[in-house]
Amino acid sequence: MSRKPDRKPLHLNAFLMSTGHHEASWRLPESPAEANSDIEHYKNLARIAERGRLDSLFLADSPVLMGDPGRRPAAKLEPTVLLTALAGATEHIGLIATASTSYNEPYNLARRFASLDHISGGRAGWNIVTTAGADAARNFGLDDTPLHRDRYRRAAEFVEVSTKLWDSWADDAVIADKERGVHALAERVRRIEHTGEYFRVDGPLNVQRPPQGYPLLVQAGSSEDGKDFAARYAEAVFTAQQTLEEGIAFYKDVKQRAEAVGRNPDGIKILPGIVPVIGDTEAEAHSLDAELEELIVPEYAKRQLAQRLRIAPDDLDLDAQLPEDIPTEDEIEGAKSRYTLIVELARREKLTVRQLIGRLGGGRGHRTFAGTAEQVADTIEHWYDSGAADGFNIMPAVLPSGLEVFVDRVVPILQERGLFRTEYTARTLRGHYGLPRPANRLFETVDHSEGHFGIGLAEVR
Amino acid sequence: MSRKPDRKPLHLNAFLMSTGHHEASWRLPESPAEANSDIEHYKNLARIAERGRLDSLFLADSPVLMGDPGRRPAAKLEPTVLLTALAGATEHIGLIATASTSYNEPYNLARRFASLDHISGGRAGWNIVTTAGADAARNFGLDDTPLHRDRYRRAAEFVEVSTKLWDSWADDAVIADKERGVHALAERVRRIEHTGEYFRVDGPLNVQRPPQGYPLLVQAGSSEDGKDFAARYAEAVFTAQQTLEEGIAFYKDVKQRAEAVGRNPDGIKILPGIVPVIGDTEAEAHSLDAELEELIVPEYAKRQLAQRLRIAPDDLDLDAQLPEDIPTEDEIEGAKSRYTLIVELARREKLTVRQLIGRLGGGRGHRTFAGTAEQVADTIEHWYDSGAADGFNIMPAVLPSGLEVFVDRVVPILQERGLFRTEYTARTLRGHYGLPRPANRLFETVDHSEGHFGIGLAEVR
Repeated sequence: MSRKPDRKPLHLNAFLMSTGHHEASWRLPESPAEANSDIEHYKNLARIAERGRLDSLFLADSPVLMGDPGRRPAAKLEPTVLLTALAGATEHIGLIATASTSYNEPYNLARRFASLDHISGGRAGWNIVTTAGADAARNFGLDDTPLHRDRYRRAAEFVEVSTKLWDSWADDAVIADKERGVHALAERVRRIEHTGEYFRVDGPLNVQRPPQGYPLLVQAGSSEDGKDFAARYAEAVFTAQQTLEEGIAFYKDVKQRAEAVGRNPDGIKILPGIVPVIGDTEAEAHSLDAELEELIVPEYAKRQLAQRLRIAPDDLDLDAQLPEDIPTEDEIEGAKSRYTLIVELARREKLTVRQLIGRLGGGRGHRTFAGTAEQVADTIEHWYDSGAADGFNIMPAVLPSGLEVFVDRVVPILQERGLFRTEYTARTLRGHYGLPRPANRLFETVDHSEGHFGIGLAEVR
Repeated sequence: MSRKPDRKPLHLNAFLMSTGHHEASWRLPESPAEANSDIEHYKNLARIAERGRLDSLFLADSPVLMGDPGRRPAAKLEPTVLLTALAGATEHIGLIATASTSYNEPYNLARRFASLDHISGGRAGWNIVTTAGADAARNFGLDDTPLHRDRYRRAAEFVEVSTKLWDSWADDAVIADKERGVHALAERVRRIEHTGEYFRVDGPLNVQRPPQGYPLLVQAGSSEDGKDFAARYAEAVFTAQQTLEEGIAFYKDVKQRAEAVGRNPDGIKILPGIVPVIGDTEAEAHSLDAELEELIVPEYAKRQLAQRLRIAPDDLDLDAQLPEDIPTEDEIEGAKSRYTLIVELARREKLTVRQLIGRLGGGRGHRTFAGTAEQVADTIEHWYDSGAADGFNIMPAVLPSGLEVFVDRVVPILQERGLFRTEYTARTLRGHYGLPRPANRLFETVDHSEGHFGIGLAEVR
């Protein structure tokens, strides 16, 4: 591969998930039985990723028990809380928590992210999700999930309210003037008085403006609504892309949409997922992949696939291809683009249900790549140079071992090729991704006129 | 004072608040300017409290900017997040976070507390509050706060839902049977299918049962509704009591109410607040107290007092007593008992508004006690022996210095008198308070019949 030492470095995010992204990873002899609620396990993962100078850690989430608890570790510590614990175990790495705009209140969530950003010294990121599925809805007094488009409308307003709340304290609001007895300037803290379709929020927030201004805004939906949302709000996008061609098309599409709404396309980083299965030889890597595939319990996986396809498990025959009569993407509510990706993968490669289950076992639709460290570095470089990625969302099949081997063997190759940092040069998550700190929209100029909160300085002099 | 070496030890909780409970504490030369968002400041406080073998740390909270940001550090990091960070800086001490039942969803909040309990190894506590005030309501789409009684009804149902969610995984649900490929037993994880007046929640929770079963349940309301709620649900009660007589009456009242609903009165610990101002001599303590009082900005404090009394600031004359024409407790929505305490204090001692402001400056209605370490230990012992307290909520006027002097000088006296532990003997917050781990109400016996979640073990064999 050609070396271009002056090119921009790429970005790497470690997507953490209990014993690994492969659904059968927990069955390996070395996997800890209760990794999903063991803080020491997660601290270890965070330190490994930081040793590799990765940009960030990421936790997926949904406010519902996802899938069958028999099948794999299904319980998950709440991400803003878990990442706060990991902030204390690390110094540099970014901390990206998934949180739902459908099942939270902006005041509470904006405050937790602001708190995490303060506690971590500017390392918080928010993966904004709208949360599909009736099961989640039924944990919040609803019978079924709101419609896809409505969820995205709410998400957009949620982000608007959140950014206003983060802006409700000017960066210079706190003066702590002990002599005069004025802690914060009343005219530099103000109500937001937001009234919209979904929310009425007066503010101000009861946390000072976060070190990063806003946490890094991340998005992972790849449907049409999802891409429009990303183009407008996201600064990093996690996406599942099975082929280079699809990856290039997605990359172009999102960057163009961002430009169309007046944004700098460099301000939105595209990170496809990759499940690297790494061996000393290619054969060893494939053998590890096959070993994991054999550990999948087909009854569980078939049931999960049937749920995703909205058909009965009995309509799936393990040794036949997918039935013809399954819904179209338009008929699906939630995880729309992932649905299409899975169906197209099965049709394109004429996979039996059993084979499809094997292909989904590693990354649930994300691209699995088995090979040597060199080959993994090659595919990363190739996708990067081809304009399919600004970086990658690393999803080790097995944890911690898959992250260790990636950090110890793939990262040095990328560093040697001038593709990845050898030391952290920034202190914040935005800094790692080369993204600016947002200006405060409520305090662009000093405003002594109205809307301020509390007694003005003149009154206490 | 008489020594009774075989008596039960008392309990001590450190109530943390930025630069201290005295509203003017931040104006002292040594107070850090941004203590309220400085995680290192809080870690230092947590370690001091743990050095003193205190039972727990506690953070008050409300989802609104409380009071004037000019007056004192008003911003607050969100407690479940902040205490998670403190869990990593400590090993034994309990971590009690305030969270509102009026402005949260049970699924989300139960999950965060379960997560904190897992991360801290069983040290989480929840101070259950209903959150008064129109300002908070207006951060959540409401025009005004729900009525006092309605808020308590919702709180009761919220606690019921939360405990069911914590019970939705049997303690032995996870078997991690790698051979058969069964991570959790389907019949030991179940939906709660709660349908009530305020909430419909299907469950199960997506976090395994917390190490403590439930976090310690704490309550701090002292109104009639508040005492009834405490009697039914609380295991520890924080309360403001100005005089020993009132303290004894409150203690008896709550214990009797607990007995009346069939609870063991020992299972509910009463902890009055105390703001200790400690000097080498009594004169030095009073001088520190006077120094702090002089630093109060009367304009801010008068405005705050007027708000509490629901009158205009101009109706208060700093050098006169409270006007006659103020509301009765019945007309007040929220913080009802504190309202009465303040009015009675002012009337009983015939205080001018300026004097009342000084008396409230330290603990906002909690009892301030200025004296030597020996005198502070004496008053603690006296209240304890008189049946007014099972322990105390320690509210240092200045932080960290007030906590340091309490830990280094008062705690050793209490230990010498056999009143306080010299080492931690338990690993959990419940253990420190001598309270049992609650049994699981959904899995008292193994139930293979119905309501379980996922595929049964037989199906995957």
